[in-house]
Amino acid sequence: MIGNLTNTRPIGIFDSGVGGLTVLKALRERLPFENFVYLGDTARLPYGTKSARSILRYARQAARHLQQRDIKLLVIACNTASAVALEELQQELQPLPVMGVVQPGASAAVAACRTGRHLVLATEATVSLHAYGNAIRALDRSASVEELPCEMLVALAEEGWTTGVIAEAIVRQYLQPFLSGDESLRAETIILGCTHFPILRDAIRVVAGNEMLIVDSARTTAAAVKELLRSAGLLREGSDAGSLTLLATDGARRFARVGGTFLGSDLSPDDVRVVDL
Amino acid sequence: MIGNLTNTRPIGIFDSGVGGLTVLKALRERLPFENFVYLGDTARLPYGTKSARSILRYARQAARHLQQRDIKLLVIACNTASAVALEELQQELQPLPVMGVVQPGASAAVAACRTGRHLVLATEATVSLHAYGNAIRALDRSASVEELPCEMLVALAEEGWTTGVIAEAIVRQYLQPFLSGDESLRAETIILGCTHFPILRDAIRVVAGNEMLIVDSARTTAAAVKELLRSAGLLREGSDAGSLTLLATDGARRFARVGGTFLGSDLSPDDVRVVDL
Repeated sequence: MIGNLTNTRPIGIFDSGVGGLTVLKALRERLPFENFVYLGDTARLPYGTKSARSILRYARQAARHLQQRDIKLLVIACNTASAVALEELQQELQPLPVMGVVQPGASAAVAACRTGRHLVLATEATVSLHAYGNAIRALDRSASVEELPCEMLVALAEEGWTTGVIAEAIVRQYLQPFLSGDESLRAETIILGCTHFPILRDAIRVVAGNEMLIVDSARTTAAAVKELLRSAGLLREGSDAGSLTLLATDGARRFARVGGTFLGSDLSPDDVRVVDL
Repeated sequence: MIGNLTNTRPIGIFDSGVGGLTVLKALRERLPFENFVYLGDTARLPYGTKSARSILRYARQAARHLQQRDIKLLVIACNTASAVALEELQQELQPLPVMGVVQPGASAAVAACRTGRHLVLATEATVSLHAYGNAIRALDRSASVEELPCEMLVALAEEGWTTGVIAEAIVRQYLQPFLSGDESLRAETIILGCTHFPILRDAIRVVAGNEMLIVDSARTTAAAVKELLRSAGLLREGSDAGSLTLLATDGARRFARVGGTFLGSDLSPDDVRVVDL
């Protein structure tokens, strides 16, 4: 299968900023031979408090930029952009396959949950579109889904205050109403419906307790991407480590500083190229 | 002086979002007969974590939009945009007078402070440009100025968590290093170098104590604007209450919801017109 062996075209990933680097990290762990090009729209971040109209416009510009770089697959590594723009981009970019992070996260939550009671932590835009609620109920019609906008968690993650008293107090402020009261009504899963939130997992665990199932989309998206590449004959097989290109629409220095936390490895501003969309 | 009586052209104000409404509020209190047009660039907010290059581009677009609305004066009601773009806009928009919020804030702090020791709370971009440090030292060469980026305070204000345990814990986390230790080295003024921060004044007061002078630019900017209008013969005199036009580049609903807190009066989405820049 010479086609598979030479499938060196990169996987394109875009996000509103650096949060999607948690998805990139999971993708690189699962697909170490693939080449990746990541685009963070740092000039317009965050998307989570913007209108659907603006988010769709920004997502389109980012997707087209990556399309011009001859990618073989596009991953929308931003929950908000996935919620708003996935269907439009799948149609507009045909035959390029496009995958979001909401569907894989919803599937993982439904698979893990016995009681059908879910709590989704997300941005304002993702919540207002009921992206997770709709995706979960499409898989489990009787599921009960609470969707909670948590903008302060985005700020916490960006500031790097990921553990400690303040992080836990803020998480508690959001979660308390869903943790107290009748045990039979409590959520069984917490879905991290924003790519910033996996780095707050420890603080969420402290507040939510050891029984809670915490689901994030990064790993399940990586598994779904691998499956899609395999079924489409687009996997790059081999033993050479894949390459990584990092693009941002603004501020290489800040991207490197904040992004390192999300990617889980140090970045230098020289690793990041600034592009205009 | 018929010129004065008929000077009904509006004062233009722009900000990255809703924070500048604290400045608008102060302006309307001091200049109740003036007409105002306020533009919040909510499609690209926040400016505080963006690069100078992007901020200048956005500020230029906002300023030109307001210029086309025949304003008689432009107020840059955003500390970050004032820090980055004031001089460029003053040159480019001549003969339209353009005023920022950094200079009035710095003047007020210098006038109030006996020891010359200032602590500036601001965004990353305002701090990295040393906007307040430079403005204060231009007035008091021997002043000592600490400039502290406080992005979590922006998020707190936007979320409306302006008082209480979490607000105070976050303020304390930032201020503690400047409040403890040798009393003779402590700051005497805290300058609220971001238009979001005046609504956190109570939490800052609790943490910083009653002795601390807390300076914000809103009121001093309003006084400076009145003085400039008077000296240029541009004051609108009369007894009719002035009008207010609110423009945003995205999300009238969110602008109304969050902006009401900053303006200190309820807003409805119908009060806000969305425009493209």
